[in-house]
Amino acid sequence: MTKVQASEDKDYVQSLVRGLEVIRTFSRYKPRMTLTEVAEQTGMTRATARRFLLTLVREEYAETDGKYFALRPKVLDLGFAYLSSLPIWEVAQPIMRDVVNALHESCSLAVLDGLDIVYVARVPTERVMTIGLSIGSRLPAYCSSMGRTLLAGLPPAELAAYYDRVKIERRTERTVANMVALKDAIETSRRQGWTLVDQELEMGLRSIAAPVKNRRSEVLAALNVSTHEGRTSIETIKTRFLPVLLDAAQRISAALPQ
Amino acid sequence: MTKVQASEDKDYVQSLVRGLEVIRTFSRYKPRMTLTEVAEQTGMTRATARRFLLTLVREEYAETDGKYFALRPKVLDLGFAYLSSLPIWEVAQPIMRDVVNALHESCSLAVLDGLDIVYVARVPTERVMTIGLSIGSRLPAYCSSMGRTLLAGLPPAELAAYYDRVKIERRTERTVANMVALKDAIETSRRQGWTLVDQELEMGLRSIAAPVKNRRSEVLAALNVSTHEGRTSIETIKTRFLPVLLDAAQRISAALPQ
Repeated sequence: MTKVQASEDKDYVQSLVRGLEVIRTFSRYKPRMTLTEVAEQTGMTRATARRFLLTLVREEYAETDGKYFALRPKVLDLGFAYLSSLPIWEVAQPIMRDVVNALHESCSLAVLDGLDIVYVARVPTERVMTIGLSIGSRLPAYCSSMGRTLLAGLPPAELAAYYDRVKIERRTERTVANMVALKDAIETSRRQGWTLVDQELEMGLRSIAAPVKNRRSEVLAALNVSTHEGRTSIETIKTRFLPVLLDAAQRISAALPQ
Repeated sequence: MTKVQASEDKDYVQSLVRGLEVIRTFSRYKPRMTLTEVAEQTGMTRATARRFLLTLVREEYAETDGKYFALRPKVLDLGFAYLSSLPIWEVAQPIMRDVVNALHESCSLAVLDGLDIVYVARVPTERVMTIGLSIGSRLPAYCSSMGRTLLAGLPPAELAAYYDRVKIERRTERTVANMVALKDAIETSRRQGWTLVDQELEMGLRSIAAPVKNRRSEVLAALNVSTHEGRTSIETIKTRFLPVLLDAAQRISAALPQ
């Protein structure tokens, strides 16, 4: 649907969509912006951007010193509404902690959103001394272990729609090179019930993922453990990590509220 | 400002505010709602709630099976915009991990938002086997160590405004009983440069906090370590935890981008 069609539809609240765009415009690289900058970033007129910014300020989602605008912590309530609406969250965290205790590697949980995976939980290992932003982070699905696990769990029509839209970009020399290789890899994931991705996202990074399913065997999320190639061989991942991961994914699946 | 005044103001985009209310209506207790339920929860007409919900669905912030509506992970992008706009985030995490490694207790970072503190980062210790939702969680400022630290850092006019609005509720038998006691406690925090709160939020819970400041000595955030009364005496908190905490808060302050 194009913007023009959308704005003609009486059920479409354009002000909401544009206001959300204003929120999303703020980032690590642009934490504070003037009215002019927000207008430029969003393609709005200054007058329109001003109305949205002042509304966000009045509702305490943003603040201003008269010149610069910045977001306020109330914005977290919006993402918090999503996270706290996931029944998987509370169930998964203690089980993920068990995985980290057993393997001394970070354990993450992600869901699929369009072409990306989005992290919804992460338990870091103490080994990792720097952590980037985790919850809410996005990665392309095709070259991550959780992504392939989630794609393998899609109904055929949705997977076909994904294949139509995805564009493969080789992130490392090991990234799947084309659609044939990707389809093969996803077929393998489905058949095996787990996915090992070796340095396709980033050189040095290895990870293994398994699906979390509901009682109807629909894949709700993917659980993974990631490690470094210099620390853990493929063999160790398969013999030591995989059983722990499969057990944890199954425990989370079984513990989900019905 | 009342709703009526607000809606009459031409700079106020009511559709944005109501749309954000719709997002916030979803929660752990109401992860999936019908149109009727959303209308009831938000006090909107069904027709209005429907327009907002369909807009959120079309923009992929929500999904529906025709009857129930639920949020989608794209909502996390909104909170992510805020978190990633905080320069403190990346600087603080590795230092917080050092604190956890040294003390084997969880370390958190929070900012003030109105009457509440809001968690913006948390590094759990392995000891804690169940973790609730952390980032985005809110607690009343008056009875938490990070809250009192942040209040002690407010300019006098803002602190006076806080005192006008706050309502003290005794969460435990140890919670400050009245405004005189609260003002005393905050004065002590300011004088000491740290805050110890002993079971005022919840029986058994002890925590100690210190301010993170920018170069102009403005308090940007509070850093804390929390423990259990059965595990750690007040004496141990003061002699062993406090130096580690103060050192970490100072390192974060010093490392902040200018």
